[in-house]
Amino acid sequence: MKLLIDNVSIIPMTEENYIIEKGFIVIEGDSIQAVGIGNAPSDDYDQKIDGTNRLALPGFVNAHTHAAMTLLRGYADDMPLMEWLEKKIWPLEARLTAEDVYWGTMLAIVEMIKSGTTCFADMYFFMDEVARAVAQTGIRAVLARGMVGVGPENEQAITESRALFNKWNGSSNGRINVILGPHAPYTCPPDYMTKVMSLAEELNIGLHIHLAETAGEVADSIKVYGQTPVAQMESLGLFDHQVLAAHCVHLTEQDIEILAKHQVGVVHNPESNMKLASGIAPVPEMLKAGIPVALGTDGASSNNNLDMLQELRTCALLHKVNTMDPTVLPAYQALQMATTNGAKALWLDKQIGQLAKGKKADIILCKLDQAHMIPRYDLIANLVYSGQAADVDTVVIDGNIIMQDRIIKTLDEQEVLRHSKQAAERLVSPN
Amino acid sequence: MKLLIDNVSIIPMTEENYIIEKGFIVIEGDSIQAVGIGNAPSDDYDQKIDGTNRLALPGFVNAHTHAAMTLLRGYADDMPLMEWLEKKIWPLEARLTAEDVYWGTMLAIVEMIKSGTTCFADMYFFMDEVARAVAQTGIRAVLARGMVGVGPENEQAITESRALFNKWNGSSNGRINVILGPHAPYTCPPDYMTKVMSLAEELNIGLHIHLAETAGEVADSIKVYGQTPVAQMESLGLFDHQVLAAHCVHLTEQDIEILAKHQVGVVHNPESNMKLASGIAPVPEMLKAGIPVALGTDGASSNNNLDMLQELRTCALLHKVNTMDPTVLPAYQALQMATTNGAKALWLDKQIGQLAKGKKADIILCKLDQAHMIPRYDLIANLVYSGQAADVDTVVIDGNIIMQDRIIKTLDEQEVLRHSKQAAERLVSPN
Repeated sequence: MKLLIDNVSIIPMTEENYIIEKGFIVIEGDSIQAVGIGNAPSDDYDQKIDGTNRLALPGFVNAHTHAAMTLLRGYADDMPLMEWLEKKIWPLEARLTAEDVYWGTMLAIVEMIKSGTTCFADMYFFMDEVARAVAQTGIRAVLARGMVGVGPENEQAITESRALFNKWNGSSNGRINVILGPHAPYTCPPDYMTKVMSLAEELNIGLHIHLAETAGEVADSIKVYGQTPVAQMESLGLFDHQVLAAHCVHLTEQDIEILAKHQVGVVHNPESNMKLASGIAPVPEMLKAGIPVALGTDGASSNNNLDMLQELRTCALLHKVNTMDPTVLPAYQALQMATTNGAKALWLDKQIGQLAKGKKADIILCKLDQAHMIPRYDLIANLVYSGQAADVDTVVIDGNIIMQDRIIKTLDEQEVLRHSKQAAERLVSPN
Repeated sequence: MKLLIDNVSIIPMTEENYIIEKGFIVIEGDSIQAVGIGNAPSDDYDQKIDGTNRLALPGFVNAHTHAAMTLLRGYADDMPLMEWLEKKIWPLEARLTAEDVYWGTMLAIVEMIKSGTTCFADMYFFMDEVARAVAQTGIRAVLARGMVGVGPENEQAITESRALFNKWNGSSNGRINVILGPHAPYTCPPDYMTKVMSLAEELNIGLHIHLAETAGEVADSIKVYGQTPVAQMESLGLFDHQVLAAHCVHLTEQDIEILAKHQVGVVHNPESNMKLASGIAPVPEMLKAGIPVALGTDGASSNNNLDMLQELRTCALLHKVNTMDPTVLPAYQALQMATTNGAKALWLDKQIGQLAKGKKADIILCKLDQAHMIPRYDLIANLVYSGQAADVDTVVIDGNIIMQDRIIKTLDEQEVLRHSKQAAERLVSPN
């Protein structure tokens, strides 16, 4: 299959602020064969997409989420964190069935595709169902079964993680990657974390963890271990593995040095951290230290959406006011976090994150002929500061056209909405 | 003309967290005749809108903007404030013609209607053109000719303000209100401000001003007047008039008392204040003091959009993390700021801001059958934390259907996009 997108504006994310005002992209099989300026070479294309008044860029990488938590969207908001978790979220999560997780994930995938996300990193349970949804819908994902050492499922989580890896890792033409998901330092005591790391070493895969999300977590860690969570994890040897660390809100200078030294992929989740009042991560400092800081939405119950354009705009705005410096985190850098840094944090930067020859064809097209995208002085600023989810009208993943004119081709959207509504109703019904 | 919207979910904004799951709205002429639960009374309706899978609420009030600055969107971003103003914004603004302001305002109105704004408060120049655009398009507006005392146009601004009032105030069935626009305390010295206040008294109208936007403004005011800008304006007698004060970022406790005592309508512009790194306004404290704090986008050059759903979400998230309290500024309160408080701040609360019998019919309908709006535990949380501009599919203003199925009926959208693109190209061309 040879696909051409022509007459299109392109932000390839290969060079700072580089924009191709009018160009073309040639896709062969699952990969990009050429990205160029001007008219496309004549060739026998199996399919053409007219990119007139469209902007092409790499699909967004949502580097930290719990997809099926869409089923908890709007169930509990504007509450103190522990009350929210203990009285609302955890009791409802305990009722989730495998089928619920399937439909919740399908709902999340609809929302993600319709807002330009082509790859996501997920940590949850019933992950077999998540993998099934990923395989069916054509999206790319890095999946981890959440592992809690202090709970009754600690051994089961290890068994299931291994089974998930054996069944799904590398499947769907490599669209599915499986890693391990030790939930957090405070839920995975050292002996359990050591077991998890042994498994990571055996399977030669990375780990996805929540790290230094709240001030309370850091204070507790210092009380128990005499170290910050980051320092404790380094002592344990966690960072000798490839690690994807979500949040990293409360960090010391030494923590930042540790994360930089080990090139930990940090995932910034600004909207979740704002909504739960967890704090503001020192993102400019981390970027300056050379840490590949990616972006994530976290689960829909603490955001409450999976829209990466919103997330990257919030990120760009928040750090300006937080540092009182309007030059901090310019538009292009926010876009990098959502694309190239996401790819790096997931160790997929050889495959995705840029539009360039040899990369996988994970591409989105955004409509430009709209009031909020005019004038056209700066396509990058327009996209970052004014772009909307609904601007995304075409999504290509792994060389396949997954969405065109906002119609998703790999699933029945109305069926997904219907089933996920029903699942949500069951979830909160008395029996 | 008798219009019925039925089978619709409604957030009337008349009572905290009140939602009508299924109800109807009857509109006669420019006003709401009934809002009810269940089925609509049978009657001879001239037109019906099926509200199935739609959410009705009062249109948003964008209480502080400079509409025609859409033509400067993306022209200069991520720069220090004074460099941005002096090297980029002011030189380009100096080139704006009356026709530019007309098309820039038309572009803004397209963007506002398509994101659910039904009323805006504008401060700019060539305001005759702004009024013409408002009259044609059917939107509601409170217009002020910006007045700078220290510039060469100080007398002209007074003459033009009076002419604007005489020509437009109360016109278009009362959709257009004219007030005065003294730019800011630091651009309007006491003798000039006194002249402006005399005119306000003569015409019996309010004033729209920028107030305490930056720390530098406050420091300068204390140096020159020995008072904060708010205290200085009180001393001058400004607050004996009805005042709409944009920004109010840097306030003392005494400033908040002054604003509360005089019931000044404060307009919070979170995204502009973040992008320009001006600071974070003490909104929870102002609301607690009883100040009607409204929301605005500011101009598109410092935002860079006019999307009030984004603005109210950013507002709700920002103050939670700023106060480290997740219960601060819950979803309903953010929605109040964008509707009822906007109406109050513009002294239009007898007319707009709520869906209730006797109010003007300024109503928007948002699509609910979308992934990011499912499940449906809490329509208010869904709208505030997950709603998107493109969800708005129908807009009624002053009893007229202005947009249906996202088609604006009072203008030719493609013509507006074409003319505003041309205006922007002229603006940055060498001659």
